[in-house]
Amino acid sequence: MHRTKVSVVEGVLDANDTIAAANRADFERAGVRVLNLMSAPGAGKTALLERVLGALDGVRVAVLEGDVQGSLDAARLARLHVPVVQIDTDPGFGGECHLDANMVRSALPQLPLEELDLLVIENVGNLVCPAEFRVGEHARAMVCSVAEGEDKPLKYPLMFRACELVLVNKLDLLPHLDFDLDTLLVNLAAVNPDAERLLVSARSGAGIEAWRRWLMRLAVHPEALA
Amino acid sequence: MHRTKVSVVEGVLDANDTIAAANRADFERAGVRVLNLMSAPGAGKTALLERVLGALDGVRVAVLEGDVQGSLDAARLARLHVPVVQIDTDPGFGGECHLDANMVRSALPQLPLEELDLLVIENVGNLVCPAEFRVGEHARAMVCSVAEGEDKPLKYPLMFRACELVLVNKLDLLPHLDFDLDTLLVNLAAVNPDAERLLVSARSGAGIEAWRRWLMRLAVHPEALA
Repeated sequence: MHRTKVSVVEGVLDANDTIAAANRADFERAGVRVLNLMSAPGAGKTALLERVLGALDGVRVAVLEGDVQGSLDAARLARLHVPVVQIDTDPGFGGECHLDANMVRSALPQLPLEELDLLVIENVGNLVCPAEFRVGEHARAMVCSVAEGEDKPLKYPLMFRACELVLVNKLDLLPHLDFDLDTLLVNLAAVNPDAERLLVSARSGAGIEAWRRWLMRLAVHPEALA
Repeated sequence: MHRTKVSVVEGVLDANDTIAAANRADFERAGVRVLNLMSAPGAGKTALLERVLGALDGVRVAVLEGDVQGSLDAARLARLHVPVVQIDTDPGFGGECHLDANMVRSALPQLPLEELDLLVIENVGNLVCPAEFRVGEHARAMVCSVAEGEDKPLKYPLMFRACELVLVNKLDLLPHLDFDLDTLLVNLAAVNPDAERLLVSARSGAGIEAWRRWLMRLAVHPEALA
């Protein structure tokens, strides 16, 4: 029974990779760079996008917004006058807990790919399954809030390992938490020593210029991220 | 293809319910009441258990600890001298994002059920899938941190709807956040008007006595929770 389940799952992941490759080919053809942005619920993905998407100096950007239900985040981002396409995962399985390549593919016809330089895919808030499904992206970034505790890289290693960039958010809360930033960084280094790190606060603005520059680099000089 | 997927998933949930009923029968036979405790990563489940498990006045309690990887939380709770059994979901699928009834069943032989009054099952940190899998529990509670934002009941309605109790944690951070508690409570009432609510802070101790009494009631007078 267990073996059957595993082989079904491997089949699902194989199919996902095939579709992810098709998405990637479409992105390359259109000349658009794609970021898969992930985090736990409430870590600040949308707030960090609100901070920078209007300030990307000529980079034409759109957002693909994944949620189990509703379009609250899409409404927030649409105020920045960037194209936003919503994927509700709700019809799947009482709510899929992640985006997969086929969900992203189903949304592509609604996006003006040829007119974009950068597409940000905001994944469902979850530290487990989003890391398991490539969607055709060029880079993966995750947001980790200091309010979540120092132990998260050790408890959700696949997510922290999957990303080229880890944004440590809500730095403004540090004086009010029993949280040791050095311990978080040691734990992060233990699971992913190669990840780039940015210490940021969407609320205070700390580190936001570095985040903006990282996105610009992904859009314009992606080779500099390797 | 989509239809096939849905029927596989329904089969999985049917099997889960069958095993959950078997777990429940074992719990009833042993006279132990069972709580399924859920939240997003880092909302404070373990901290809230640390606050009360040593103070349950004669109630014999154990914890079943679900994590993708590692046993950090189990180690924290074992310090309270309560029996703790760890389930790592990692072998499943690059890490299952939830506990299911069969994982719980596989851990039951390691628990002294006949000698317990209360078993707390600390689920994997995730606001989506844990709500979809009953494990045989009598009650479900979730922890929602004020650092996560007011919109979470609207974005993850199944989780908020699944619970008899919602603990709003990290109240001590309110002065340092752009967070409106009334909006959260309105959003919660919109998706689950019947949920009991406790406003708490594991850090300051606010509301902890009410949380302790809720657990005592579940263990000793569960009919009072209906």
